[in-house]
Parts: sequence; C-alpha cells; structure tokens
Amino acid sequence: MDTANLSSQSQLSSLFSLDFVKMLLRGAGQVMFQNNIWTGLLFLCGIFWGAYAEGSGLVAWGALVGLFTSTFTGCVLDMSADDGKNGLWGFNGILVGCAFPTFLGSTVFMWIGLILCSMLTTVLRTGFNNIMAAWKINSLTFPFVFSSWVFFLAARLMHGIPTEGMATPGLINHFTSSIDLSFFSLVIYWLKGISQVFLIDSPITGIFFLAALFVNNRWSAMWAAIASALSLFVILIFQGPGTDIASGLYGFSAVLTGIALGSIFYKVNPRTAIWTLIGIVITVFVQAAMNSLFEPLGLPTFTGPFCVATWLFLLPLFKFDKHDPDHSIWHRKEH
Amino acid sequence: MDTANLSSQSQLSSLFSLDFVKMLLRGAGQVMFQNNIWTGLLFLCGIFWGAYAEGSGLVAWGALVGLFTSTFTGCVLDMSADDGKNGLWGFNGILVGCAFPTFLGSTVFMWIGLILCSMLTTVLRTGFNNIMAAWKINSLTFPFVFSSWVFFLAARLMHGIPTEGMATPGLINHFTSSIDLSFFSLVIYWLKGISQVFLIDSPITGIFFLAALFVNNRWSAMWAAIASALSLFVILIFQGPGTDIASGLYGFSAVLTGIALGSIFYKVNPRTAIWTLIGIVITVFVQAAMNSLFEPLGLPTFTGPFCVATWLFLLPLFKFDKHDPDHSIWHRKEH
Amino acid sequence: MDTANLSSQSQLSSLFSLDFVKMLLRGAGQVMFQNNIWTGLLFLCGIFWGAYAEGSGLVAWGALVGLFTSTFTGCVLDMSADDGKNGLWGFNGILVGCAFPTFLGSTVFMWIGLILCSMLTTVLRTGFNNIMAAWKINSLTFPFVFSSWVFFLAARLMHGIPTEGMATPGLINHFTSSIDLSFFSLVIYWLKGISQVFLIDSPITGIFFLAALFVNNRWSAMWAAIASALSLFVILIFQGPGTDIASGLYGFSAVLTGIALGSIFYKVNPRTAIWTLIGIVITVFVQAAMNSLFEPLGLPTFTGPFCVATWLFLLPLFKFDKHDPDHSIWHRKEH
Repeated sequence: MDTANLSSQSQLSSLFSLDFVKMLLRGAGQVMFQNNIWTGLLFLCGIFWGAYAEGSGLVAWGALVGLFTSTFTGCVLDMSADDGKNGLWGFNGILVGCAFPTFLGSTVFMWIGLILCSMLTTVLRTGFNNIMAAWKINSLTFPFVFSSWVFFLAARLMHGIPTEGMATPGLINHFTSSIDLSFFSLVIYWLKGISQVFLIDSPITGIFFLAALFVNNRWSAMWAAIASALSLFVILIFQGPGTDIASGLYGFSAVLTGIALGSIFYKVNPRTAIWTLIGIVITVFVQAAMNSLFEPLGLPTFTGPFCVATWLFLLPLFKFDKHDPDHSIWHRKEH
Repeated sequence: MDTANLSSQSQLSSLFSLDFVKMLLRGAGQVMFQNNIWTGLLFLCGIFWGAYAEGSGLVAWGALVGLFTSTFTGCVLDMSADDGKNGLWGFNGILVGCAFPTFLGSTVFMWIGLILCSMLTTVLRTGFNNIMAAWKINSLTFPFVFSSWVFFLAARLMHGIPTEGMATPGLINHFTSSIDLSFFSLVIYWLKGISQVFLIDSPITGIFFLAALFVNNRWSAMWAAIASALSLFVILIFQGPGTDIASGLYGFSAVLTGIALGSIFYKVNPRTAIWTLIGIVITVFVQAAMNSLFEPLGLPTFTGPFCVATWLFLLPLFKFDKHDPDHSIWHRKEH
Repeated sequence: MDTANLSSQSQLSSLFSLDFVKMLLRGAGQVMFQNNIWTGLLFLCGIFWGAYAEGSGLVAWGALVGLFTSTFTGCVLDMSADDGKNGLWGFNGILVGCAFPTFLGSTVFMWIGLILCSMLTTVLRTGFNNIMAAWKINSLTFPFVFSSWVFFLAARLMHGIPTEGMATPGLINHFTSSIDLSFFSLVIYWLKGISQVFLIDSPITGIFFLAALFVNNRWSAMWAAIASALSLFVILIFQGPGTDIASGLYGFSAVLTGIALGSIFYKVNPRTAIWTLIGIVITVFVQAAMNSLFEPLGLPTFTGPFCVATWLFLLPLFKFDKHDPDHSIWHRKEH
C-alpha cells in the first residue's frame, strides 16, 4: 500500500536531478513496455519529428508536459519509489500529453485540463492496479484512456476547451473501403500503424519507434512489425474504412497487443506466438467495435482496444510454460 | 488454473468419437443449464425446425458450426476436462452460431467471423469466470453476449460483414403498443418467448424446448413456462412495443432468469419461488432498458439482460436454506 | 453474509414502532452520510418545502414512499440489523422516490415502478457491497443510480410510464454559457447545488440542508458549502451550460464528494483537505463527461458522477494518517 505524503520531501528532493530525467525517459519507454532510457529518448525524437512534420508541434510539447506532470505527481504523493524509478508514473501522462493538443484547441483551459488529466492518471493507475491485482492483470494504459475519456467528453459541454479536432457525433456511418493498395502505400500504412501508438501520423516516426524498440528488446520490435502488418491485412480483407486504415488507426492497438502478449507477459515460444497472433487479430475487431460504439459520441478510443483485447487474452491465466502466470507486473522483467 | 497446451493430444484424441458428440449435445443443453444429451438433441431439433420454418436454415447450420468450434477450442487449449465433459464449452458457441446468420449477411467473412467469435467465447468464459469466482457467481452466457457485441459492432465498420439484419441505429423511438390480444395470439407470444432463447421465432420450437426441458428437469420446464407468461403479462400492462412483444423478444431473457433462479442456483422452495418471481419481473425492465440503451447503436442485447438480472439476484448471496451459497458453478448439480 | 428469511418476523415486528421511524429518519440523513434523526428530519422538511415551492409536491411524497419501501424491504429480507438501525436501507430508496416524480409522469405504473425500484436498491446494495468490499470501498448511492437508470431507460419503451420530464435524446449539443453573474445569483446557484442532492431546485432547501448537516457534523456542512462553491467556480471558468449551472446541476455531485472525502472517509487534516479539493474539481469534469455521455439517451446521471469520482479518490488506498485505510464502511463512525 502506498503511503501518500503530500508534504514529503523524500522523493521531491530528487526533482530536476539526473535521476529525475531518467525517470522521465523510462516513462516514455514504458508506453511500449520498454524500461530503457535510450528507447525513451528515441520515442521522444520520433514524437518531435512527427509532430513538427504534421505541422502540430504542440503535440510534442504536450507530451513533455504530460510526462513531467504525471511523474511529478508520483513524487509529490510519495508513491512506491520502485514504480517511479522504472518509469511507471510517466507512460500514461505522456499519452495524455499527446492526445490533448491532437484533438482539442490550444486554450489556457485546455492546458489546465491536460495537467489535471495527467495528474489524475497517476492516481488512477494505483487504484486500478489495486483492483486488477486480484485478477493478476495490470491496468496497462487504461488510466490514460479512462481519464482522457472523462476530459474529452466533458469538453463537449465546456466552451473553454474547444473540441475542434474531435469527430462530429453521428449515427449511421457511410464509409468507403476504397484505398490505394500499391506496395509503397502499404508500407506507409504499416509504419503509421506503429507511429499512431503515440497518436503521430508519420511513417518516419514509425521507423524511429521500431529502432527504439530494437535498442532494448528485439522481440518487441519484431512483434510491433508483425502486429502492424497483420492488423493491416485483417482490416483490409474485412473492408474497413479506407481513410482510417491509411492513417494507421487500425494498427496502433494491435501493435501494443503484439508487444505485450508476444514479448512481455509471455516467454517467447511457438505456442505463445500462436496465442499472440490470435490476440492481434481479435484486437482489430475490438478496435472496430469501439470505433463503432463511440461514433454517437465522436470520442476517440485511444488505446482502449489494446487494453481490452490484452486483458481478454491474459485473464484466462493459461499456463504456456512451467510458471504460474501473474500478469500484474511487467517492469521487473528488465531486458 | 487451466493448463493451456496448444499442441496437446490428450483431449484432441477424443475428437470425432462418440464422447465428443456427447460433449456437443450437452453443450446445446447447457444453454438452459441442462446437462443432458437428450435435452440437447431436442434443442437442436427445435432449432432446425424453427430455422427452416422461418426460411433461414443457415441459422441452424450456424448453430452447429458455433457449437463445434467452441467445443473444439476447449479441446485444443486442453482446458479443464471436467468442464468439457459437461458441455460447458459449447453453450456460448451455439448461441454465437444462431446469432450471426440471424442478423448478418452470409458472406465468407461472416463465417470467418462466426468461427473466430465462437473460439473467443471459450477463452472469455475462463477469464470471466476467474474474475467472478471471487464474487461466487458464474459468467453464464455473457461470453457469447460480449464477444458477439464486439463482432456485431465491428461489422458496422466492415463491408465484408453485411449488417443487413441489424436494426438501423436511431435516437427517438416512436413505437406502438397495439397488439392482438386474443387468447390464441397470447399463446403464440408465450411460446415464442421460449423459442427466442436460441433466437428462433417459432411457437413450435417453443414446444420442442419445453419438452426438452421436461425430459431432464421438470422444475426447469415449469419455470420456463411461468417466466414467459409472467414477462408477457408485465410488458403488456406496462405497454411495451407491440411488434417486439409478439415476437417473444421480452420473454427469452426472463425465461433464462426463471430457470436459473428457480431451478438451478437455488433449491426449490416457497421462498426461492417468490425470489424468482421478483427476478423475472425485474428482468423485463432490464430487457427494456438494454433495448433502449442500444438503440443508438442498432445492436441486439442478446441474452445480456438475463445475465445482468440473474447476477443482481445472486450477488447478495442470500441464504434461503442451510447451505452457504456459492453460485459460481452449476453443472455438478446433475438432475 | 445476510440470512434472507422472507417469512421472518424478527425485524418485521418492529414495523410501525418508534424504532422504525428512527430507521427512516436516519435513512434520510445517510444520503449525505449523517447518521442522525434530526438531520434526517430537516432533510425531509427541506424536501417538502422545495417540492411544494417548485409546484411538484408529489416529489416529496415519492421520497416518503421510496424511503419506506426500501427500509421495509430490508426488514422483510431480514438483512443485517446493524445496517437497518443505522439507516443504510433507506438512503437509496428516498433518492429513487425523489427521482421518479421529478422526471416521469404520475401514472399508477410509474408508482409501481417507483416501489419496485426502491425495493431493488436494497437488494443491489448488498450485492454491490459484496463485490466492492474486496476493494475496500462502498457502493455509496450507486444502487439508487443503477436501478434508476434501468427503470428510466425501460420507461422509454413503455407507454405505461410517461417520460415527459426526461430530456429528449439528442446528439450534438448547442448550448450557451451565458449566465447572470451578479452576486445574488451566484448565491442562489451555490445553494441550489446543495439542494439538488435530493433533486430539489430551491435555494431555501439548500439552507435547510446546510442546517441539517450542521446539526450533526460541522465539517460535513463546511465541505458541502466549499464543494458547491468550488464546483460552481470551476464550471463557470470552463464555460459550461448556463442553464444547468443556474439550476445547481454541476454542484450536487461535487457536494457529495466533498462531504465524503473531506469529512467521512478521511480524518480532517491539511493533507486530506488538499486531496478533497482536488476530488471536488475532478467531480466537475466527471459530471460534465457523464452529462455528455448520456445525451444520446436523454438520461439523467443522478449521483453517478459523485460515486465514480469518490471511488477514484478512495481506490488508491493512500494512507493520510497512521491507520490502514478501509473505506468499505462509514456508518460506525458516528458523530
């Protein structure tokens, strides 16, 4: 149990030290389960490149603000030092920081919302993990997903936070599956499926992210590549919406499922590989289902489909090797 | 904890043996909690009769495919042999198999979806039961309900799976409560309330199902009959939508609640009978509520209202006799 | 575990005695966590005053019916005598009784629904608390919220229960943030934020409620006042919908969060005060988010935002003093 100590100096003292910078970089890396400062650094490079390339540099600065705020909140609340050191406070916050400027207009109230929401993720993560520990699973990026849903839905009823980048709420979806299927285009979609993990729409950023994964864990890099390709294949043959597919929006959740099942929560072996492949396929259906579910609200799913699909494949606690499975923690398995 | 063993031959060896056929038949029977091959056989007869009578024979073949796939998945994953022997892998799959051809157009991708979804139910059942065991309840048919919601919502954004049989998403409901109230019509509605448990709209099938229940457990047959009649009475006096009432769509969830509370999870006695009657009445409101909730999505509730209402009446763990209640398992109480 | 005994005379005997009247009054008080008959009495006075002042006296009589029915149900089911004595059966029922006549037309079926729904809250409370005890939290007013959602959604598909007072389901919200900001108006909004806890739109009732709190627990009164003011400030600077703000609809959930976190579940001290202030701010966003979420359904949130926000701030189980936190029970902390 955490000892929250709002006035404690114990961890606040380390603020603005090199240790704190390491916590931030590991926090960036942990978005894809990588406890490695170089991976985190390369992720940030990819975010900055992609954000400025798509003409929305504020997304990158939002990422920094969210990463800092959520990590800082963990220090202020004097929560488990082990979690902090391994970057587990920052990964939800950095995603909040990417999401807000992507979908919401840049007013002072949007930035206040971004900061409140990033703080909230650190609180929610502890609460959600308390519940889920009994089921031997982890809250993954759900603190980011849940608290962002709260603020994005709230923004619809607050003129202070313009929802100009969010989809218009609607009922029936007339969509076209037509899409350019040249080899070059397919490679672009495939790379964007990876870059969209951080809500970035850029193939170059996808390459950055693959390199960042490769630096720390080659299996993770391989599964990210496989998952983006397989999810692209599945959504193409089932004829999903062309525009979304071209932006990699059916890839990012599957990429996270692939990394999580294939290289983090299970030991790599042929049977877990089959399990992971099925998990990736199901993630595509969960992604489409949640897109459909949220259309009347015009709300993004964020990485919700990844959380749901990965939980579904961890909850049965199947034993694929000799160890009794416990999926409530991953960061101690450093690579 | 299950030992998932994707390459195991231990249970696969029994495939296509008489034992496997028994597992399938018990799987059909377990949709209404009946661990009996003759009940299962009569259910299948009712499904085939009704499906061809309403001119959609594919529904019956879908039922067989779903039943086979979900049971087969349990064998491949080498899950608890006890569950398999008692038909607990098949009952979700057969419902998936009834649901897909009823609402979705028959393309090759629909059938791939049906197979994936049936497989998924077997995985989800283990996961959901792991969570719910702590609350001493069972996941009932919720694995079917949840995974079908995923695939049906996803189908809205996939041209590969035509949603031609699903309702058009809509907001305000102008409906008429007018309905033929002759005695003969009421009997038809009453029987359809029972046949709709397997999504079949046929009074003859309702008779098949009553007979099937009677073969194994007379109390179950009686509660199915009472529940369909009582739910019909409640929705008529509260003036629900006439067309849906006439098709038995306010009956099937109540029928399952009646069987579950009245003859499976509690011992039959006057006090549990009162409890069951209240449970049936509440199921009608939960059914109407979920119909209303899903109108903007045009999504069927499936047997979701039964699951919700039955959980609500099991969760308090009231003691109606000398035993400490545990509702997480039913199949060991063979009749 | 409760021993439900549908025919027991043990607690029914006390019916219509002075003890039963005390149970009812404590039940009214427990809506705001006050285990005190005078607080309950003043709440009822405030309800009667406000209901008749806004020309809907049936709301007050509904409150009495709901309070009686839910408490009576606890006696009939012979549930934990300790809960009954402390008014824990009635606080959900009285809210059901306020909600039905406020939003639904007064037909005989509406009143049957009100009675069924009040009974259901007592059953649900036991079930929900069974689940949540493992997480060391309490179901709060969620039994009222959940069962009322069921009946209100169901009413949309039942002509027997007219939904004339509910909002029309809609998608995009064009709203104006313009609102009279004179000091006198702000005081009115502030008091209505408190009266709306019982769905009453009257500043005088707000004063009654503050006095009622003050009689039993001055910290609760103080936090109610602070929470209504702070939530008003937050929703005004974020420019929410003017009409709703003027009716106190962004205040009532925050008031309950403030009382719960600030004066009931945590000991009063500077650090828990900061925690409570943050909790109040987040409640405003949860309130706006749930309003937005329910617009396609035209469904009121009731006190759902209070439950969600308070759970989020209790679940991390932060230790703000020397005791290991357990938030599953509050009524033993009598004041």
